[in-house]
Amino acid sequence: FLAECAISHKSKNTVILLADDGGFELGAYGNKICQTPNIDALARRGVIFNNVFTSVSSCSPSRAALLTGQPSHQNGMYGLHHGIHHFNSFNNVTSLPNLLRSHGVYTGIIGKKHVGPNAVYQFDFEQTEENNHINQVGRNITHIKLLVREFLQLVNKNKMPFLLYVGFHDPHRCGHSEPQYGAFCERFGSGEPGMGSIPDWEPWYYQWDEVQLPFHIQDTEAARRDIAAQYTTMSRLDQGVALILRELDTSGHTNDTLVIYTSDNGIPFPSGRTNFYDPGLREPLIISSPEMSARKNEASYTMVSLLDVFPTVLDWFGILEEMDVSNDIDGRGDLPKSLLPILIREPPLSNDEAVFASQTHHEITMYYPMRAVRTSSHKLIHNLNFAMPFPIDQDLYMSPTFQDILNRTRSKQPLPWYKTLKRHYYRPQWELYDLLADPEELNNLHGKSGSAETESRLRVRLLAWQRDTRDPWLCSPDAVLEGDEVCRSLDNGLMHFHMR
Amino acid sequence: FLAECAISHKSKNTVILLADDGGFELGAYGNKICQTPNIDALARRGVIFNNVFTSVSSCSPSRAALLTGQPSHQNGMYGLHHGIHHFNSFNNVTSLPNLLRSHGVYTGIIGKKHVGPNAVYQFDFEQTEENNHINQVGRNITHIKLLVREFLQLVNKNKMPFLLYVGFHDPHRCGHSEPQYGAFCERFGSGEPGMGSIPDWEPWYYQWDEVQLPFHIQDTEAARRDIAAQYTTMSRLDQGVALILRELDTSGHTNDTLVIYTSDNGIPFPSGRTNFYDPGLREPLIISSPEMSARKNEASYTMVSLLDVFPTVLDWFGILEEMDVSNDIDGRGDLPKSLLPILIREPPLSNDEAVFASQTHHEITMYYPMRAVRTSSHKLIHNLNFAMPFPIDQDLYMSPTFQDILNRTRSKQPLPWYKTLKRHYYRPQWELYDLLADPEELNNLHGKSGSAETESRLRVRLLAWQRDTRDPWLCSPDAVLEGDEVCRSLDNGLMHFHMR
Ligand SMILES: [Ca+2]
Ligand SMILES: [Ca+2]
Ligand SMILES: [Mg+2]
Ligand SMILES: [Mg+2]
Repeated sequence: FLAECAISHKSKNTVILLADDGGFELGAYGNKICQTPNIDALARRGVIFNNVFTSVSSCSPSRAALLTGQPSHQNGMYGLHHGIHHFNSFNNVTSLPNLLRSHGVYTGIIGKKHVGPNAVYQFDFEQTEENNHINQVGRNITHIKLLVREFLQLVNKNKMPFLLYVGFHDPHRCGHSEPQYGAFCERFGSGEPGMGSIPDWEPWYYQWDEVQLPFHIQDTEAARRDIAAQYTTMSRLDQGVALILRELDTSGHTNDTLVIYTSDNGIPFPSGRTNFYDPGLREPLIISSPEMSARKNEASYTMVSLLDVFPTVLDWFGILEEMDVSNDIDGRGDLPKSLLPILIREPPLSNDEAVFASQTHHEITMYYPMRAVRTSSHKLIHNLNFAMPFPIDQDLYMSPTFQDILNRTRSKQPLPWYKTLKRHYYRPQWELYDLLADPEELNNLHGKSGSAETESRLRVRLLAWQRDTRDPWLCSPDAVLEGDEVCRSLDNGLMHFHMR
Repeated sequence: FLAECAISHKSKNTVILLADDGGFELGAYGNKICQTPNIDALARRGVIFNNVFTSVSSCSPSRAALLTGQPSHQNGMYGLHHGIHHFNSFNNVTSLPNLLRSHGVYTGIIGKKHVGPNAVYQFDFEQTEENNHINQVGRNITHIKLLVREFLQLVNKNKMPFLLYVGFHDPHRCGHSEPQYGAFCERFGSGEPGMGSIPDWEPWYYQWDEVQLPFHIQDTEAARRDIAAQYTTMSRLDQGVALILRELDTSGHTNDTLVIYTSDNGIPFPSGRTNFYDPGLREPLIISSPEMSARKNEASYTMVSLLDVFPTVLDWFGILEEMDVSNDIDGRGDLPKSLLPILIREPPLSNDEAVFASQTHHEITMYYPMRAVRTSSHKLIHNLNFAMPFPIDQDLYMSPTFQDILNRTRSKQPLPWYKTLKRHYYRPQWELYDLLADPEELNNLHGKSGSAETESRLRVRLLAWQRDTRDPWLCSPDAVLEGDEVCRSLDNGLMHFHMR
């Protein structure tokens, strides 16, 4: 039953391994403490990318963006999909599984889906939180292994090329939803009394005083214990990756499958997930290609957006021309691009490459639209709802790390952190950072005369991207969008730049 | 094919006539200029309500609330349904058409629907903007008449009780979407050259200098001309009501049908639609019951919410017990109630009655959550996003009235208006008004010592209602909602009152 338009050349497959709130707690990315031998081994078989950014630091929006190649404001997933949040992509959006299926590719999802509506994101094989407990398909790596096996048996029986998307729920927090398993569900299936056992998982434990502290987390015992729990959860994810790759090998597909490892958004710590600072936007990305000509055990420093995964996979299946580039009105270069050429040869370093980000909601109550452009040297953030405090999600709020910040702030105890809570909450409308001189993004250069030209250039580029991608917030917060292009001023005393 | 649970007693039917952005431009409500003889006649056959308030001053949210008896934050319709706004009620919400259909009532909608998803709001007979041009089913009263006739013929053939919901698009503006027909589409089908003709409509025209100016609209020629156009559109609506009631009569259902006339939200002028000031919340409501015992040509002054329409219709069909009151945890009296008893006898005046309102988005970019409680004497408004300017919708922005305010403000010309643009944009977190002394809501009593007890009482009552109706914004903007009931402070410097 291959369609007329089926993939015609030799079988090519893709496996996407997606961590949930995963960061750089990976040996391959230089973490000396957190042990991830299996993901490190994958990196040695491919290219490890060092400048990768999600287009939105929130779960459903990031997954929708990954699966459509469109930023959240364009595909309609303005915030979280589940429960009272209830965001959905538009009905006419084209997703990777739908497009590939129409080309005769067998598509499967195992684990966390967190996007909708169903008709827009339809896989042939679905074992997700919609028909399972999320922990069983997202954290129980033995169960995941068996589901992958089942999927690959179907694939081999049908002799079809395939896309397999594995949405790990690790290393997401679970202190908010299931605190009995620990802050990161690090005890789920650990074999400890009452925690159940995952046969294929050997948990690795860490001392709180030995963890490698990222600059954006305070140096306290509470925060370090939180990180140690996260590390243990990473051991489950890492061993899960090994199990999947072994199934791939057993089924005979190591040599015809592109393997992509990445994560949806920054780690669930202050300045991470839901933020546009680098700890919120930067993601790990490893791509291992079976082709003989592909680079192995090499690093790339090209600026990459997770929006690029969509054209990369289309390119791998030979249908890149199917990508809807109707929005590329002016033929600008700021739209998603295939990464396959980078797997062959590292492009010359360019200071002109930029990635873009767009976020609106996370939880339904957390309205804090941000738009950003980032080059290798600078980042410009536009905070549209800047006069209100930055919102905190329930999951982060309940975390030992955030509670520690709150408690120390309230009781005026020492807080060995790079920011104050007040600064974390209250942000200016525009933020401009020189990332080479100021990687922690503490010195806002917005409005400084020495940075005027840089700021102006980035602002024009950001607005052009918003226009090209049909951003409903193009004119916010000081003007009304009329028609597709015109911002008409509200005279509400706010400053924007579209009127010049 | 009547279901087991079908309505058992003699045929009882309901017609809901819903104006779109309709206000008090009605003879029955004391407007001496705008002529609405047919709606006035309906009022003489029933009870005219003088203290009626929508629970949300926005189109889709108000319609969803009307059809579910639940405020927008509870049914999930947080903003507009169409296009990029893309809000939908939750899949498990019970709507009037679905509930009545399951009891053997034949349900029909003609005109503007503007709610979704389809499965939640499913009528047996649907002629809406989803399968027609909105003007044809919402403004072309001859076409509407024929659709009503078709529906009633089906009803009589099937011998079923029925609910008919007619969603007029009049007197909504169309200056934003179809300016060729005038600011209020008052030239659509007027018989003027190029405007087409609606055979059953005789347009009434008004002089700009004779219109009756509401207090919240500036006294300028531009604004008055805007109102005159609105009046002309009211003549189409009024004659449409007559046509529908004539069809009802011809089909033999005048004597077994409850007729309800109301509107979804305030008129599309400053302080009206999208606002929680009275011009945004107050609605006309006329209910005409065919029962012998029912009051005729009388007025009611009871405090009524449009949320009460849902239980009223259930009561009329004898299935009020089907109403899900599971949220009425404490047996509080602040939940929707049937209005049928008021049609028999006016209840004693009570100072204790209150209505509630909850709004979050209108357009997707217009995040300005408000919660309010209103008694016969006072109103308390909580503006959750108060530090940002109040947002202006595209439709109002393009209106002659708003452009006039903008232009006069910019050029420092005289602006004979009760507010300044700046005051309209910037609102305090809490607003408390004594409506008897200050019907224009200009004197904010929040924090004044003489009003402390009133404010405290209203605040407690508003929060209780939010809790009873599962408001996700219960703790916003200064705390995080944990579990169902607990607000945990963010220490972000904002003030709320749930911690006391
Ligand atoms: Ca995530
Ligand atoms: Ca309306
Ligand atoms: Mg998440
Ligand atoms: Mg509307």
